[in-house]
Amino acid sequence: MTDVEGLRAIVGADWVVTEREQMETYLYDETTPYQRLTPAEHVVVVKPGTAQEISEILKLANRDKTPVYPRGAGTGLCCGAMPTQDGIVLSMERFDKVEEVDKENLMVTAQAGVTLGDLLAAVEDANLLFPPHPGDEGAQVGGMIACNAGGTRAVKYGVVRNYVKGLEVVMPTGEIVTMGGKLLKNNTGLDLMHLLIDSEGILGIITKAVMRLYPKFAGTATLVVSYDDRHAAINTVPKILQSGVIPMAIEYVDHDVILLSAENLGMKWLAEKGSSHLLLVLSGSNEDDIYFQCEKISDVCQEHGAIDVVIAERREEQAEILKIRSEIYSAMKPRIAGDSDVTVPPASLGRMLDALDAIADKYDTKIMTIAHAGDGNFHPYMLKELIERGTAEAVKKEIYEAAIALGGVITGEHGVGKIRLQYLDLMMDPKSEELMRGIKKVFDPNNILNPGSAIR
Amino acid sequence: MTDVEGLRAIVGADWVVTEREQMETYLYDETTPYQRLTPAEHVVVVKPGTAQEISEILKLANRDKTPVYPRGAGTGLCCGAMPTQDGIVLSMERFDKVEEVDKENLMVTAQAGVTLGDLLAAVEDANLLFPPHPGDEGAQVGGMIACNAGGTRAVKYGVVRNYVKGLEVVMPTGEIVTMGGKLLKNNTGLDLMHLLIDSEGILGIITKAVMRLYPKFAGTATLVVSYDDRHAAINTVPKILQSGVIPMAIEYVDHDVILLSAENLGMKWLAEKGSSHLLLVLSGSNEDDIYFQCEKISDVCQEHGAIDVVIAERREEQAEILKIRSEIYSAMKPRIAGDSDVTVPPASLGRMLDALDAIADKYDTKIMTIAHAGDGNFHPYMLKELIERGTAEAVKKEIYEAAIALGGVITGEHGVGKIRLQYLDLMMDPKSEELMRGIKKVFDPNNILNPGSAIR
Repeated sequence: MTDVEGLRAIVGADWVVTEREQMETYLYDETTPYQRLTPAEHVVVVKPGTAQEISEILKLANRDKTPVYPRGAGTGLCCGAMPTQDGIVLSMERFDKVEEVDKENLMVTAQAGVTLGDLLAAVEDANLLFPPHPGDEGAQVGGMIACNAGGTRAVKYGVVRNYVKGLEVVMPTGEIVTMGGKLLKNNTGLDLMHLLIDSEGILGIITKAVMRLYPKFAGTATLVVSYDDRHAAINTVPKILQSGVIPMAIEYVDHDVILLSAENLGMKWLAEKGSSHLLLVLSGSNEDDIYFQCEKISDVCQEHGAIDVVIAERREEQAEILKIRSEIYSAMKPRIAGDSDVTVPPASLGRMLDALDAIADKYDTKIMTIAHAGDGNFHPYMLKELIERGTAEAVKKEIYEAAIALGGVITGEHGVGKIRLQYLDLMMDPKSEELMRGIKKVFDPNNILNPGSAIR
Repeated sequence: MTDVEGLRAIVGADWVVTEREQMETYLYDETTPYQRLTPAEHVVVVKPGTAQEISEILKLANRDKTPVYPRGAGTGLCCGAMPTQDGIVLSMERFDKVEEVDKENLMVTAQAGVTLGDLLAAVEDANLLFPPHPGDEGAQVGGMIACNAGGTRAVKYGVVRNYVKGLEVVMPTGEIVTMGGKLLKNNTGLDLMHLLIDSEGILGIITKAVMRLYPKFAGTATLVVSYDDRHAAINTVPKILQSGVIPMAIEYVDHDVILLSAENLGMKWLAEKGSSHLLLVLSGSNEDDIYFQCEKISDVCQEHGAIDVVIAERREEQAEILKIRSEIYSAMKPRIAGDSDVTVPPASLGRMLDALDAIADKYDTKIMTIAHAGDGNFHPYMLKELIERGTAEAVKKEIYEAAIALGGVITGEHGVGKIRLQYLDLMMDPKSEELMRGIKKVFDPNNILNPGSAIR
């Protein structure tokens, strides 16, 4: 049994929730109902306010061998934050301060519970830029780092890992450790910080992060390029990557998917032609440079079958396009059994789309698809009809196998969580798994932190 | 005693060296004589040709508890590759194939013993670009990754870590493991690949790597900006970083240091004015863009005290500048007790230079200095006179302490190796060290791989 009185003594009674009806929002993440697991029956939600309190909670949990589930905003898609055994959900919501936007060093220091939306706003206020945009703006900094979030705008400067320069972490055994700092180079011993990134909450609880920022680009533009043939669209992507112009984002969307998202938001999608689109975000040192890049990208796209190119330069218009793109999952979630985030080498995008078509044919369904195409990262959506037919698992597995056959992986950004452990056999060698288990034991000898996630 | 016959049976007698006079070049690295350690007496050099042979060597070493020292080109600067106990030096020199330059995926697959020079040539032949340039072109791919090399041209796209997308590694216990691939996103479980990067050869032997390439930029230019006042020069750097133009490289050099390097190479340094210079490498999408960036950077520099700006656009001329910069260490090595690679937050560059001046004053010496300034990464050179005076250690320690006081670290790129373990107390907390030791034990239970390096 969880020591509720002990928790109250640490954080104060106001920050401990024991009533089931008050914790519904802490029991699930954004995984589709079909795929998600069942939360445990006896869960206590605790909301610490300091790293020191987290340290004491973890010591208590070690004493009692109580599982602890660190929780950001619960925007994950593989049940990584779900409490599946009786224990403690440790919510980071009170860690909500952007401590500093350092304009001299181009670094932001944010507590782990700061949302992506608040982070972007603080950075924008300082007239600076945090390039990546991993989807849901409710996501929290700690979760974004623990899951090495990707999303759009990762093509030019990479995924969240590339931005993280310092962390404060509470270890499962209670020690508070600082790693890195406002540093662009740091080679001091084994890199524990890079091990914590993408550790899915099993090695430590991230309480604070230092992340790199960029000056705002003098110019940005968003292009929406339309195609009648989705294969032509996706096959243009490697050609863009090879062109010498490096966009911040190269997204692929099915026309009907993006329309659903626009409709869901009560907004209008600006491209009327075509069955599929590429969205490209370009950044440059001045307006002429942007114009040059737009021309070059347009040429490449038109050489490869594009039927229309719309260029959005006004900031509001660009923000609208990103908004409609970023909220696709909200529109799709009620319609789907599940999604995936398989990732393949960029030049295999076309072959992955072929494979998706073949799987759809075989199972007599439609696989609606979007992709962070510049990263080789697909989001195929499996429709709900597959649940009724009992083929959802089979389709998912075939999608995974197709990606692996192309040199890809089953997850490029969502992570393993608790629902993909069973699929690790498809791709992971026994030695790697043994090493991961060994590392876990070094960090968390009693296996209290997010048990059942990320590794077997 | 090392099982020489066993080694011969694995790799063939031709690839086992036991005569001391034939192995001198395998016993040292590029650490200055004053700082370097003494190699062990009974060393056997073995030169495997395949990952399978390495696996067998490591199994033999585990059986006999024989230390194994993986060796690239020996260009390291902290005795990381030096055999300090009787055992095996495992040279990667036969892993010298660039297996593939994949123009479609913009990825290169290279064996670990490929030199930086050969890598750059193969990439250039394919009309592509590997942006970073970590100094000595004799350095090998495996060493560059095991030490997360930095060097010049890391400002825009980061250090070597950012380029590594896949690895083949022989584990200390003999298993051959593949990690990652031609992938821009990959979140499958704990990231062992990022743990291997910067592990300084203590967790596994890297045998092959997949690294990201870029299309060649349509335009590049190298600027040499001269100053009469080195503080003005260094203080310009954060302003450049904040300007919105992101150079590939921002280097700081003392005029007398770069002259020594040019002279050592029999080349001519093109800037005649000033006591110090900034070297900037700019890349852009076209000539106009480069011109715009040059103008903007020139303006920033002139606002901050620059007395002259020379722009090199011809490829040969740019290559010459980079060559003279990259070979500074060769010119300095005979003159110095040692160097350092302390790294501070970029906005603290000026304060670090103040601190270096104060230390030089206190010890009545000159600290000649270059810096990968855009990364906050200094290379202060301590002159040989300090050895005679018995103050070299004191000066080094004060430089480390000054960097740490500014939120920096004692090593931004060279690593800990075997000569900096004693300085870890200045900055590393006991829990981090405990975790590193625990990880080491998981990977290498008999502590055979590069013992005495990187961690205590």
